Amino acid sequence: MKSIGVFDSGVGGLTVVKEIIRQLPHENIVYFGDTARVPYGIKSKETVIRFSIENILFLLKHDVKLICVACNTVSSFALPVIKNHFRVPIVGVIGPGVREAVYATQNKRIGVIGTKGTIKSRAYEKEIKQLDPKIKVTAVACPLFVPFVEEGWISQDVVLSVAESYLKPLKDAKVDTVILGCTHYPLLKPVIRKVLGKNVTLIDSAKQVAIEVKKILAAEDFLNKNRRGKHEFFVSDNPEWFSGLARRFLGKPIKNVKKVNNV
Amino acid sequence: MKSIGVFDSGVGGLTVVKEIIRQLPHENIVYFGDTARVPYGIKSKETVIRFSIENILFLLKHDVKLICVACNTVSSFALPVIKNHFRVPIVGVIGPGVREAVYATQNKRIGVIGTKGTIKSRAYEKEIKQLDPKIKVTAVACPLFVPFVEEGWISQDVVLSVAESYLKPLKDAKVDTVILGCTHYPLLKPVIRKVLGKNVTLIDSAKQVAIEVKKILAAEDFLNKNRRGKHEFFVSDNPEWFSGLARRFLGKPIKNVKKVNNV
Repeated sequence: MKSIGVFDSGVGGLTVVKEIIRQLPHENIVYFGDTARVPYGIKSKETVIRFSIENILFLLKHDVKLICVACNTVSSFALPVIKNHFRVPIVGVIGPGVREAVYATQNKRIGVIGTKGTIKSRAYEKEIKQLDPKIKVTAVACPLFVPFVEEGWISQDVVLSVAESYLKPLKDAKVDTVILGCTHYPLLKPVIRKVLGKNVTLIDSAKQVAIEVKKILAAEDFLNKNRRGKHEFFVSDNPEWFSGLARRFLGKPIKNVKKVNNV
Repeated sequence: MKSIGVFDSGVGGLTVVKEIIRQLPHENIVYFGDTARVPYGIKSKETVIRFSIENILFLLKHDVKLICVACNTVSSFALPVIKNHFRVPIVGVIGPGVREAVYATQNKRIGVIGTKGTIKSRAYEKEIKQLDPKIKVTAVACPLFVPFVEEGWISQDVVLSVAESYLKPLKDAKVDTVILGCTHYPLLKPVIRKVLGKNVTLIDSAKQVAIEVKKILAAEDFLNKNRRGKHEFFVSDNPEWFSGLARRFLGKPIKNVKKVNNV
């Protein structure tokens, strides 16, 4: 029984895994977190592409039928370049998030927040404009959000204060919809909502990504229907750290995280 | 003319380079910053050792006569293991900082701050105890300090607020001397001083490291005395990002940073 392969620079991709498990409980999942080289969000396009190809080659060794790139930086920088290199279908997080945001906005003003790499790539902006050129996009990088989440600072006053500073351009632009363009950011939803107010719709692409995965597998008649799927987790470093954070992202602890040298 | 090799996970080691240039203006320096895999402070001992060996092998290709490990995490985790593998003298940052701190303390209570890796290794504590077993050491990890410095948040209220939380155990322990056990932390001196008060001595090991380098080179009659040294900078990713931050660490901009794939 072939598996769904999922990779991320680290632990953030587990927010996507959580949703895939919810929607596709019969599927096997092989997850790889590149914790030896995390984070990707501050690295160059060229380096992110190199790392991504190595991660995909690792997953291919595990007999995957589809690969889900559960990382916005990789989806922005690398996916357009590497998608055509491989025969296996590869699903990123940008398209699904964009479709939901374009559907949700009423005033045609969408905000995007992400890592430096994601924002610099303008990937979200390009995809939004393709669907509706009239939409105004305001995109800002929030580089301290990832360290805050990983250190467990998710509700303190300091986080609120940094969030107020980062999100000011979105408030000024009067956006009614904001894409959380990094798999860590859903954990900061309460703070982001406090800053932006309850009338702004926050888009977390995990749900749409899982729908997309399901659609592709169904179209190719690749869905498993019978027994419950098994889930395997590999990292390039620090399995204990990964296990410890997993509960926060996946909603449950992970045992048996395996360390591998993928390069 | 052989060079002094210096490496760090990223840009922080430039605070050490600055001091080497000041004390040894005639020496050539080859610097390597592993910006493709930065940061090291959250990674495991095994991985930090693997990366360090790769970095040393890179520097050895550049005809170095001494290697300075300008990174506390590497000095803590890897140096004791790898020092004996190589014929070239390798100088770390722990010993020099410890000697100055032990000399400075009056009440025999020393605080140490650093990355998670550095603190977990207990390297500072062990070296201090070797010099004076009666000294009480209080060590705390300050994982958000590196992202703050790299994002330029060095004097804002949020940084002060995080610093107050991190440094409370040092205040409670009534330390009179604190080792800044990470090459990024000297840039946060004003904030740290504000929290700890002006009577606490802050030890920045860069000066002592340069003295140690000078001592070793002099003993082997390896010092250059004639012309002004030239300085070369290599990184594994993002030369522009490195150049941009360099001014903050080195006190002057760096042109001509070269990107290499060291692995």
